Amino acid sequence: MKSKFQHVALIGKYQTQGTGPNAVSSRMVLDDIAHFLARQGCEVVLESETLANTGLTQYPGMSVEAIGTHCDLCLVVGGDGTMLGIGRRLAPYGVPMIGINQGRLGFITDIPLENYQTTLHPMLRGEYEEDHRSLMHARVMRDGHCVFDALALNDVVVNRGGTAGMVELRVEVNGHFVANQRADGLIIASPTGSTAYALSAGGPLLHPSIPGWILVPIAPHTLSNRPIVLADAAEVAIEIVSGRDVSANFDMQSLASLLLGDRITVRRSEHRARFLHPKGWSYFDTLRKKMHWNEGGS
Amino acid sequence: MKSKFQHVALIGKYQTQGTGPNAVSSRMVLDDIAHFLARQGCEVVLESETLANTGLTQYPGMSVEAIGTHCDLCLVVGGDGTMLGIGRRLAPYGVPMIGINQGRLGFITDIPLENYQTTLHPMLRGEYEEDHRSLMHARVMRDGHCVFDALALNDVVVNRGGTAGMVELRVEVNGHFVANQRADGLIIASPTGSTAYALSAGGPLLHPSIPGWILVPIAPHTLSNRPIVLADAAEVAIEIVSGRDVSANFDMQSLASLLLGDRITVRRSEHRARFLHPKGWSYFDTLRKKMHWNEGGS
Amino acid sequence: MKSKFQHVALIGKYQTQGTGPNAVSSRMVLDDIAHFLARQGCEVVLESETLANTGLTQYPGMSVEAIGTHCDLCLVVGGDGTMLGIGRRLAPYGVPMIGINQGRLGFITDIPLENYQTTLHPMLRGEYEEDHRSLMHARVMRDGHCVFDALALNDVVVNRGGTAGMVELRVEVNGHFVANQRADGLIIASPTGSTAYALSAGGPLLHPSIPGWILVPIAPHTLSNRPIVLADAAEVAIEIVSGRDVSANFDMQSLASLLLGDRITVRRSEHRARFLHPKGWSYFDTLRKKMHWNEGGS
Amino acid sequence: MKSKFQHVALIGKYQTQGTGPNAVSSRMVLDDIAHFLARQGCEVVLESETLANTGLTQYPGMSVEAIGTHCDLCLVVGGDGTMLGIGRRLAPYGVPMIGINQGRLGFITDIPLENYQTTLHPMLRGEYEEDHRSLMHARVMRDGHCVFDALALNDVVVNRGGTAGMVELRVEVNGHFVANQRADGLIIASPTGSTAYALSAGGPLLHPSIPGWILVPIAPHTLSNRPIVLADAAEVAIEIVSGRDVSANFDMQSLASLLLGDRITVRRSEHRARFLHPKGWSYFDTLRKKMHWNEGGS
Repeated sequence: MKSKFQHVALIGKYQTQGTGPNAVSSRMVLDDIAHFLARQGCEVVLESETLANTGLTQYPGMSVEAIGTHCDLCLVVGGDGTMLGIGRRLAPYGVPMIGINQGRLGFITDIPLENYQTTLHPMLRGEYEEDHRSLMHARVMRDGHCVFDALALNDVVVNRGGTAGMVELRVEVNGHFVANQRADGLIIASPTGSTAYALSAGGPLLHPSIPGWILVPIAPHTLSNRPIVLADAAEVAIEIVSGRDVSANFDMQSLASLLLGDRITVRRSEHRARFLHPKGWSYFDTLRKKMHWNEGGS
Repeated sequence: MKSKFQHVALIGKYQTQGTGPNAVSSRMVLDDIAHFLARQGCEVVLESETLANTGLTQYPGMSVEAIGTHCDLCLVVGGDGTMLGIGRRLAPYGVPMIGINQGRLGFITDIPLENYQTTLHPMLRGEYEEDHRSLMHARVMRDGHCVFDALALNDVVVNRGGTAGMVELRVEVNGHFVANQRADGLIIASPTGSTAYALSAGGPLLHPSIPGWILVPIAPHTLSNRPIVLADAAEVAIEIVSGRDVSANFDMQSLASLLLGDRITVRRSEHRARFLHPKGWSYFDTLRKKMHWNEGGS
Repeated sequence: MKSKFQHVALIGKYQTQGTGPNAVSSRMVLDDIAHFLARQGCEVVLESETLANTGLTQYPGMSVEAIGTHCDLCLVVGGDGTMLGIGRRLAPYGVPMIGINQGRLGFITDIPLENYQTTLHPMLRGEYEEDHRSLMHARVMRDGHCVFDALALNDVVVNRGGTAGMVELRVEVNGHFVANQRADGLIIASPTGSTAYALSAGGPLLHPSIPGWILVPIAPHTLSNRPIVLADAAEVAIEIVSGRDVSANFDMQSLASLLLGDRITVRRSEHRARFLHPKGWSYFDTLRKKMHWNEGGS
Repeated sequence: MKSKFQHVALIGKYQTQGTGPNAVSSRMVLDDIAHFLARQGCEVVLESETLANTGLTQYPGMSVEAIGTHCDLCLVVGGDGTMLGIGRRLAPYGVPMIGINQGRLGFITDIPLENYQTTLHPMLRGEYEEDHRSLMHARVMRDGHCVFDALALNDVVVNRGGTAGMVELRVEVNGHFVANQRADGLIIASPTGSTAYALSAGGPLLHPSIPGWILVPIAPHTLSNRPIVLADAAEVAIEIVSGRDVSANFDMQSLASLLLGDRITVRRSEHRARFLHPKGWSYFDTLRKKMHWNEGGS
């Protein structure tokens, strides 16, 4: 029986650069996986930068966007950061992704490199669990014009400058006034992002199937300004009322020097990231391991 | 133009008893509202206990269940507690409810008694906002049999006895193991209940449109046991692993003396409570007032 | 060079009973330690129940109180619970204690059984760090009379019954009104207890040298009822204003059926527990290990 | 009977500038208070900038430092911010201060302007409560040299830049390693500062008599990195291990562009701020009002 996926792209840790020992070992790992995929009857392509970094020139190279158009599966070797970065770019194309992790398993990259064949074999034959993650479509509006536009899988953060006092942010949901919040900043996180920065700031965990965002103030001046879960069907708008050196952050991208009156809006993107996991995978198993529940100890 | 609602039931603060000064004033208030409804062309009935308490015998009496079957609107005079109690019982019948509050406004009973006519008049003519609240259908299973069955609008709580140490509770979602939690107890709250006990225990606020429950541990032994928002389409099961004098609480009803191995299951009920609010009502306005946001002060 | 301590008492896990395999292994462990102490020139006595449980009749038996009067060091083999229980009873006598732990190291019992000789040898010669822990002297006053009196090393807890709603507790410090708190309960914890129940309820850690208690409400109704650190020189009084099945807990001892108007008072005891640790011991090393700081992971 | 205080300085809201309506009203208020003091037998001086802003040239002007040397009481008209700013500068001279508040009462400025005479009269005769607040002496060490030196009454904060990721900070107490913390930043707050930024970041309240600092991480990556109360007799050192655009803040003063390896050290200053309150004043009364305890509501 052949692989359900014919055109499979392979991406290595995206930021890897240089020709040091890691680049070499990365090359061997990717070469091994590519061979394995070929033996399963897949046509393998390498993402262009991965190809440039590893020199595995026997495979055709493709940009992430071309992978989106031409491939029906994308295999990422790296950590959660790499997976989320690629996931954000592939989401518009609907290409499913599988994450293989060399180090400590992540929330999303849950297949260990060791013995990856045993896990991948049935997955390529169609035995897997789908795990869809919603994306945030964020914009910065200034004087009625959009001056910035980005997708985010984890979170959108608006915060004060490093040497500045509190910001004051006006929050609206679908045009309804929610509150003026004075705090270090405000996080709007997706369920995926609820295990990241939002958690550190006191937010709850959101199961990926919840169609909502969590709004978490960072060190709010008013103690009753608690995290609130909002429907992702609504548009959340954050207007900068006061503050100095205010900046906004969209997953990895920062936009500094926001002006008073700027509005950051967040809507659910029509796209979703599609992650595939081995049959029997449960979000709760991953959560339990990553959160160190039930390990004993305080 | 006539009232959209023809058969309207009137319920006073449910627990009121005796013939003291409050009973009298309650009687005057209800009599006044009944007259107002009649002038709007409604046929007014009084809930039986309200009738017994007030002696307003010029109106027919009806049980809450009969109101469910025969009326197309129910007007409750009281606080959130009264409204939630009646809401739970009327939900299976789909009868919409309006809450009038004599004292401090609540999360749900947001129409002040003073000048209630001005607010009710357009609402009776069909100008209102609908606010649907999901209900939890909870059961206690022992040796495979259901030994208790209840609806809850706020929360289901499992907790330790007053002089006992921690309970250990096994949590499952749709049969998937989540974690064993050691804590004073565990709260499963609806969005409606997220502003009540769950908030005190550190849970987030949930917008009523979120199809989810929030699972909040009370004083958890493991610090990473954070609140988690779960899809209400799933069945949450809590099994009592260890503990002494463990009890469960469903809104107002307590079930003491649970046994090790007992399972409390929570599903979304097929019914919802239907609350009507004046046109222009926003959940966020209520939240802001009740949470004392934007009042200045720490 | 001889041991600085001449009369050394040995206590095994206090609650141990029966003659099962654990009792046997406990016997071997204690016998081994007793021999080691004798070789160091100490006169060894066994605490009476430890003697009864192990049958090591070659050593004289003594009650904990007699140990307090006659010995100049007490060696406890067990976990934090055992150590705290004995520490509370020995504190009035000023006898220093050393804790040896068979299993997972505790906050106080920080000497692993394995190779205990290497660690104990210099300690017996006077090379150690002293770690003094303040004790709470708690009383329950009813109608002006003291109806209960206890020492506590960890905490004093007043809480609601298992099937009851919130308690309301009036807090006073040295006769000054602090606040009426409505909550599941209230914890007054010593620095030692700050890593226990108080931590689960949201309290901070207190370094043992801080002359203070931490007052932590459990699931407080008012969100601004935050934990507060009070000077231990003051008398804290908690009066039961309302609530059902209210009980108080002093470390391990529970007092149920408190009445409205009962006052629980807490003062610093004139006694302190004296724990000895190996030279170079730092409270922060223990804290870091027990709290799993700097282990990587979320 | 004459005033216990002979030389009394008067300071108006320090930052006030211009000759707008507020300056005028400020002038009238200060003039009135100065007259009152003179009638009580005090020799009144005005702080130089207050004099410049108000033009009350009938009184001699003095710098804050000269006030420290020559006066035995300082009266501040303004809010907590003004009081703390002056308190920091007067602490080395041991001059006691009284705070009069025109607007909403503060934690320290607790005498309302209205009817201030009634309150001040007995205080000037020696009937008052003393309220001493410890000061932090903070330094920034770079390559073994002190490059910055400041006193702080509220807190010392080290935090990340506005567009940067987490900082990693190594914490030591008296040379003992505590932990490496990855977070938005770290707050070391005095009891006075425990009601300010530290509270927003999740810290407890510290009674002013507690000889300790509270160390509060801001949005810590590791959930078990809880606030910890440290003895103020110890030296706390924070070393910058990693991070971008890291800055430090000492009450109002910011020091940007810290370098990796920089160490911020905090010791208790030998000086204390001395605030006087009316007889019968209780810290808890102020706390209860400012925290909105016992006002009803959630």
